Amino acid sequence: MKIALDAMGGDFAPQAAVDGAVLAAEKLDGKAQIVLIGQEEAVRPLLEQHGPAAASLILIPASQVIEMGEHPAKAYQQKQDSSIAVGYRMLHAGELDAFCSAGSTGAMLVGAMFSVKAVPGVLRPAIANFVPKMHGGYGILLDVGANAECKPEMLEQFGELGSLYAQYVLGINEPKVGLMNLGEEEGKGTVLTQAAHQLLKVNPHINFVGNIEGRDLFNSKADVIVCDGYTGNVVLKLAESIYDILVEKQMHDPFFDKFNYEAIGGSPILGINDNAIIGHGVSTPFAICNMLLQGYQMAESGISDQIKSTFKS
Amino acid sequence: MKIALDAMGGDFAPQAAVDGAVLAAEKLDGKAQIVLIGQEEAVRPLLEQHGPAAASLILIPASQVIEMGEHPAKAYQQKQDSSIAVGYRMLHAGELDAFCSAGSTGAMLVGAMFSVKAVPGVLRPAIANFVPKMHGGYGILLDVGANAECKPEMLEQFGELGSLYAQYVLGINEPKVGLMNLGEEEGKGTVLTQAAHQLLKVNPHINFVGNIEGRDLFNSKADVIVCDGYTGNVVLKLAESIYDILVEKQMHDPFFDKFNYEAIGGSPILGINDNAIIGHGVSTPFAICNMLLQGYQMAESGISDQIKSTFKS
Repeated sequence: MKIALDAMGGDFAPQAAVDGAVLAAEKLDGKAQIVLIGQEEAVRPLLEQHGPAAASLILIPASQVIEMGEHPAKAYQQKQDSSIAVGYRMLHAGELDAFCSAGSTGAMLVGAMFSVKAVPGVLRPAIANFVPKMHGGYGILLDVGANAECKPEMLEQFGELGSLYAQYVLGINEPKVGLMNLGEEEGKGTVLTQAAHQLLKVNPHINFVGNIEGRDLFNSKADVIVCDGYTGNVVLKLAESIYDILVEKQMHDPFFDKFNYEAIGGSPILGINDNAIIGHGVSTPFAICNMLLQGYQMAESGISDQIKSTFKS
Repeated sequence: MKIALDAMGGDFAPQAAVDGAVLAAEKLDGKAQIVLIGQEEAVRPLLEQHGPAAASLILIPASQVIEMGEHPAKAYQQKQDSSIAVGYRMLHAGELDAFCSAGSTGAMLVGAMFSVKAVPGVLRPAIANFVPKMHGGYGILLDVGANAECKPEMLEQFGELGSLYAQYVLGINEPKVGLMNLGEEEGKGTVLTQAAHQLLKVNPHINFVGNIEGRDLFNSKADVIVCDGYTGNVVLKLAESIYDILVEKQMHDPFFDKFNYEAIGGSPILGINDNAIIGHGVSTPFAICNMLLQGYQMAESGISDQIKSTFKS
């Protein structure tokens, strides 16, 4: 099994990327190989600094880098030898089992759509984010930003995609799917959430528990929380800021420590034909390592095949 | 000046309402009179228990109560002698300077629209909520639930309404108005936020600082944060749940303590012809007291006249 990392992605790349990749290789202990994709002259010396610890890592050269400020679609098309484009090409060719990057979120999405593509039947892939639960473990929230504007049918599919992920990757049996809304009653909400509620309610593939509210994000009402990408993005960034404030105030707690994006490392793109994960721009080696371990778990679980077979019917 | 309270509103009414009203009367120390509206046989004995401390309070009888489960519009029309209907009638007649209730949010909104009505020129009134700021003080977020679905012009007006409130009630000079979005760049977001951005940008009455993100809720980027009522409601309830979790974990901090709704007591309805405030269903006497003090501040500031004169032009 090969789990790849964009060695040029993230504010502290390639140093943090290489350090994180070496960490992940140690933790995986031969269960999967780590592939680094990036500029050879920049990455090779960093790898060599790690000595024997880096011996198992494979370096695939990619001469270009998509910068954070670039237009994602244009940059992806023009920089065919960028680390992101090379990564997706290899993923699509079956040479990799998962591809992770802490680089441009936009370019990672564009690559997912243009290269490995959405699973037939999936209207729009979504970015899922892990949400720590008060009673332990994690739930997931999707979409958190791939689709600012959504149709009811998309929210319904996010429920299915999230449910499959919760089941096969997080190991949650019959995951509870909730629809983020401004009230629990069925008739509440926007035209979008009202229509999505009706679709989710009759979908036979999921265990829909109805509307949930902002206050239910961290409790046990739902394992999978569905919303449009605008709302999910606001919620995600708000939760991240709470964590930052707690750290600033030196208020530590095992539950709130799980808000730290580093503990998870990245957000999977669900609904595409392969495993791709987007990391935080500020990723540390620890975050990079966990993103790669998550990539391994996704690949190991066979989640993308599960999604394909569910949507084929 | 007369500040009125729905004595029958809230989960712990009329006891918590009466106790809170007596507290507020003590704090106001003659600057304003507190008017209680509710069932005389239930409220009178509670008032009498307070002895001389309750002597300055006025009790206006209202024989009916709108329950939390009732359909707001139907209940408001049918129960013309309910505490909420009597309160709005008196407010509209100029017999009160502010009306506060921890009862049915829906009935309070219906009463606001049918009785005192929206200020001419205001498309839709909004519910505003206080947001504690890391650097001290409060900002406001609106709408938090009056309008699940919004048009760009409504968000523009929320910017104006919030700006006037921040200026005249919170005393913030040239309040910074931000639009809640999923990215800082102008072109980001939904069709709604993109269009609202263009309207807010050229509005001469406000100091628009552009898009803000979920992570900016508590920092100093914006004093007034504008969003649709669905998003605002999700954000508000999420923030409340964070406070509840911190309390449960006995993690105390002056900043997070300001998340406690009791410290503010209620959310003003902005854009109507008078001062009305909606309190939390679980309001304690302390929360009721602070809601009444907020009502006094609103009335004292002349905010509703400021809104009327701004929208007249």
